[in-house]
Amino acid sequence: MKTLVIVSHPEIKESSTQSFLKASFPNNHNVTYHFIDEIFDKEQDRQLLLENDRIVFQFPLYWYSAPANLKRWIDEVLDGDFAFSGNKPLQDKEFALVISTGIAKKDFSAGSKEKYSISEMLKPFEMMANKLDMKYLAPFIIYQFEYLTDRQKQALVTDYQRYLMQEKFDFDSEIKWFIDELTNKKQDLLAETLKAKQEELNDLTWQVKSMREDDGEG
Amino acid sequence: MKTLVIVSHPEIKESSTQSFLKASFPNNHNVTYHFIDEIFDKEQDRQLLLENDRIVFQFPLYWYSAPANLKRWIDEVLDGDFAFSGNKPLQDKEFALVISTGIAKKDFSAGSKEKYSISEMLKPFEMMANKLDMKYLAPFIIYQFEYLTDRQKQALVTDYQRYLMQEKFDFDSEIKWFIDELTNKKQDLLAETLKAKQEELNDLTWQVKSMREDDGEG
Repeated sequence: MKTLVIVSHPEIKESSTQSFLKASFPNNHNVTYHFIDEIFDKEQDRQLLLENDRIVFQFPLYWYSAPANLKRWIDEVLDGDFAFSGNKPLQDKEFALVISTGIAKKDFSAGSKEKYSISEMLKPFEMMANKLDMKYLAPFIIYQFEYLTDRQKQALVTDYQRYLMQEKFDFDSEIKWFIDELTNKKQDLLAETLKAKQEELNDLTWQVKSMREDDGEG
Repeated sequence: MKTLVIVSHPEIKESSTQSFLKASFPNNHNVTYHFIDEIFDKEQDRQLLLENDRIVFQFPLYWYSAPANLKRWIDEVLDGDFAFSGNKPLQDKEFALVISTGIAKKDFSAGSKEKYSISEMLKPFEMMANKLDMKYLAPFIIYQFEYLTDRQKQALVTDYQRYLMQEKFDFDSEIKWFIDELTNKKQDLLAETLKAKQEELNDLTWQVKSMREDDGEG
């Protein structure tokens, strides 16, 4: 499965949340990070969409929706010519959202400050996925990043990577993902051990070589 | 009551709906038409917001939301410095929407093509009005303008003008609005009659004057 993460933020360099997510981004050739600026290449970005299976929009909430740059990208890349010309080119792909907000989780509820839930607020995105015959995944919301503890941030890294890479979100897939991760970590450990051994071997080879040269001279 | 209509459309000159609404726009100094382009004056537009009581966003639906230009205007004009610095500057003003869409009315429903209602789709705008302590009015939706009959278009003119100008939307206010309109029309008629009479009078005066001159000469 290949994942494309389309990132939008009007002041990305000042964003600690986006810096954190960038640093947490999986180091894996199946996951692509793609920042959207004011200028973009429509055709190239459409090609990217076609090549991936899970399309993720990652952005901070601006007035309960996407920042203007991402809205322009959506309006122009997903125009009628591309999105509805004959067949539906994004059919059966997954549509996912990684959204950060300064608003507390408890406020998104009837009777609370914001009155409505995140699901209600994101209806325009769900309707878009529906129109494109894409599969809408439950969104990944980061509430009040600046108040997270170190432990919560640690959990965020894993949860974020799983959200981008895990094939399904049932319990079995979660277990499988952790086993794979541990295996990868184990392979990393083996590789590091091998590398250390190799360096040791190089050292010894050099010592033997110089001893032989000493012998030759003697 | 003063109304500000903020209009956004990426290709407004090609839009028959927007041309129709422009032609139907009330000829009244209490209603202001304000088109938002890619470039705008933040401070001037904030001043306009402060000077008006009913703020209307008028746009065609683009992916179940506002076109990108309007989203940029919202993000930049209604930024934290303006919208939340101490008091809430737009408090108690009315927030209204005039939205055109190519989708049929019947499709906005559970079990139908779009799955969700217009009310559900517009939650981000309702949440914005809520955040700004503005009063959210029921939106004015124009479905499939190109399929409207002449009679329906005629009704649209009146309904649109009422939506922009009528103080309240109960039955009494509606009756009052029509009586005022008729009075205005009657005044127009009186004014026209007066103007015609005046012209007649001018003619007669001129005739009398030339007759006297003829007498003087005789």
